[in-house]
Amino acid sequence: MMELYKRGNIFVISAPSGTGKTTLCDRLLKALTDLKMSISHTTRKPRPGETDGVDYFFVDKETFEKMISNEEFIEWAEVYGNFYGTSKNVISQLMKQGYDILLDIDAQGAKSIKKLYPESILIFILPPSMEELERRLLQRNEDKDTIKKRLSKAEEEISQYKFYDYIVINDNIEEALNDLLCIVCAERLKTKRIKHDEIEKIFKK
Amino acid sequence: MMELYKRGNIFVISAPSGTGKTTLCDRLLKALTDLKMSISHTTRKPRPGETDGVDYFFVDKETFEKMISNEEFIEWAEVYGNFYGTSKNVISQLMKQGYDILLDIDAQGAKSIKKLYPESILIFILPPSMEELERRLLQRNEDKDTIKKRLSKAEEEISQYKFYDYIVINDNIEEALNDLLCIVCAERLKTKRIKHDEIEKIFKK
Repeated sequence: MMELYKRGNIFVISAPSGTGKTTLCDRLLKALTDLKMSISHTTRKPRPGETDGVDYFFVDKETFEKMISNEEFIEWAEVYGNFYGTSKNVISQLMKQGYDILLDIDAQGAKSIKKLYPESILIFILPPSMEELERRLLQRNEDKDTIKKRLSKAEEEISQYKFYDYIVINDNIEEALNDLLCIVCAERLKTKRIKHDEIEKIFKK
Repeated sequence: MMELYKRGNIFVISAPSGTGKTTLCDRLLKALTDLKMSISHTTRKPRPGETDGVDYFFVDKETFEKMISNEEFIEWAEVYGNFYGTSKNVISQLMKQGYDILLDIDAQGAKSIKKLYPESILIFILPPSMEELERRLLQRNEDKDTIKKRLSKAEEEISQYKFYDYIVINDNIEEALNDLLCIVCAERLKTKRIKHDEIEKIFKK
């Protein structure tokens, strides 16, 4: 079957930490080989097992600041003292290669993406309740201060949900994954993402 | 899990005859018990096996015309000498019962629905090619004149596809069904269809 639908679609996923976003994104990427995660730049030090160019592009603060002043980022943010940014170049390379793009960023970043790419698709993942979110954060054995900070950030983030196109509740991981797969599948079928010349070719005898 | 998403969504499916629309709609309704087909009124005589109130509401021309003048239809059309119409009352009853609604109507009817219900979702099903459509119509053992008429109507209908929200190509029935299931699933997850008071209840501690 010919490719009737355009690729280069940008899917943005935001979620407070503890919502299961990382697991969901990993599963989504495994299920859809034509969807690629955009790798962010960060000044954070690599954690054990993290690889440069796979998990992040690890750069020093000077490099990051130079990239900011060169306007190389679509969006960037400082989170807990570290810088994170989405490079325009990384996105445009993935687009050129014919992939759809997955971005894992916060509400502020999502807004910047939507501004630059109005056709991008914003998905917000919510925990089933604040109690459940707290329970999940406690399971991670994080200290009380971190949990408190994350919960307060979560509430702030959640208040932004109305700006997003889709809301997925992660009560059950398989159901939430299915929701995400449906969103990607359906968005790709939108008339506005179709290659109109291909359609016309078929129906001109 | 609580119901976070509103029902009463209207899904409109249009397709030229021979595209497999009827089979797809039947399969979709079997898969999704909270989606109900809106039963049309028609002046066409029942075919063997058709039941009044199940396949159609079979009415005589006089009744149909009275319903037109009483503005009881959202849309109605004359097709090959018979009248077909979607009753406002049928739709509102299904909405009251908490169902999503499936409508199988032509491009003209789809436009009327969108006008009255701007949040309705329009899906156009296309055959993979005109040759394949002709082959499918030939398999039905219809006479050459009918096929010619249907093909010419198909070309006319297809020219309307840009007005629809989604395009599904029925090359393979299972894939096309999956596309439809994804569209319904994804549309139900849209932020604009969420019950905002339910979300706020969860996140107010």
